Amino acid sequence: MEILKERICRDGVAIGTEILKVDSFLNHQIDAALFEKIGEEFASRFSDVAPQVNKIVTIEASGIAVAAFVARYFDYPPVVFAKKDLPNTMTDAYYFSEIMSFTKMKMAPIRIAKKYLNEGDKVLIIDDFLAHGQAAIGLLNLIEQAGAELLGIGIVIEKAFQGGGKKLRDRNVRVESLAVIERIEDGTILFA
Amino acid sequence: MEILKERICRDGVAIGTEILKVDSFLNHQIDAALFEKIGEEFASRFSDVAPQVNKIVTIEASGIAVAAFVARYFDYPPVVFAKKDLPNTMTDAYYFSEIMSFTKMKMAPIRIAKKYLNEGDKVLIIDDFLAHGQAAIGLLNLIEQAGAELLGIGIVIEKAFQGGGKKLRDRNVRVESLAVIERIEDGTILFA
Repeated sequence: MEILKERICRDGVAIGTEILKVDSFLNHQIDAALFEKIGEEFASRFSDVAPQVNKIVTIEASGIAVAAFVARYFDYPPVVFAKKDLPNTMTDAYYFSEIMSFTKMKMAPIRIAKKYLNEGDKVLIIDDFLAHGQAAIGLLNLIEQAGAELLGIGIVIEKAFQGGGKKLRDRNVRVESLAVIERIEDGTILFA
Repeated sequence: MEILKERICRDGVAIGTEILKVDSFLNHQIDAALFEKIGEEFASRFSDVAPQVNKIVTIEASGIAVAAFVARYFDYPPVVFAKKDLPNTMTDAYYFSEIMSFTKMKMAPIRIAKKYLNEGDKVLIIDDFLAHGQAAIGLLNLIEQAGAELLGIGIVIEKAFQGGGKKLRDRNVRVESLAVIERIEDGTILFA
């Protein structure tokens, strides 16, 4: 997605060889106009499975707005976001998994209430980043626990050099990434 | 907002006298079609200040999608969401406050990077719930630290009996709530 790559080049900040900061438009400050175009692009990439998708799954926090904008271009399927905390309003049974967050350097539990993910659901996962694949694999785990079917994963920015995309594609999961970064070198972002 | 109240009555679950669960459409599973109408309603309520608003501020996680949809009906101002965790990508100076989360029964730090909130900014706060007012007052605190100006607070559901709305209005803050709950009684939701 050309305008996304241009935006990453213009406003993204590469730190060392691992970290790409895009908090000026994606995960701290949000550009809703760009999110609309991102939603439209995912709808186009997944147009072949659009009639089947009945649920979009993501994870708090930065994935939520992206996923909600994607829903606009499908037929407004429910968007379910996995929670990392356990609020006192989460009184129902839930699916549970645990993932490593490399940006926060800690293990984090993730949960989806059982009533919002059902056997037979046809699910699209949407998230802002794919790095080591922890979030995506954790969500896939919840989807498998529910007996639902994953139709594909839509990612805004994939950092290919951290291997998450390869892990998923090796499991025959369809991954559509709008911008794929091959590596980060001396503060320069190199796209695949 | 009538369709919101109807939705709360139909799908909301009242627990005891304090808790309202709306996780089927607002804060675990999201109904993006409803969020569009919510965005439109906030735009209408704040139409008098719309030309001035240059930033929308919210807090992760449930406020994000609401705020992003509101931005569509303004002129796509940047949406900044306060963060509760400190990721390793947050390397810049930030404004800091601390709030009590009654749903999680713990104090939580909240942060906004200084570069995304500036002196002279005209800010609208958008959030899903207003209960004791902790999140709103914490965000107001960050806005004051930045020397920005708060034009108003838009809330999807206000639980009036928990006093947050009164606290804010007593400070002459403009609060627009789309559904105001007077009290919860024997599992019944009573609107103001």
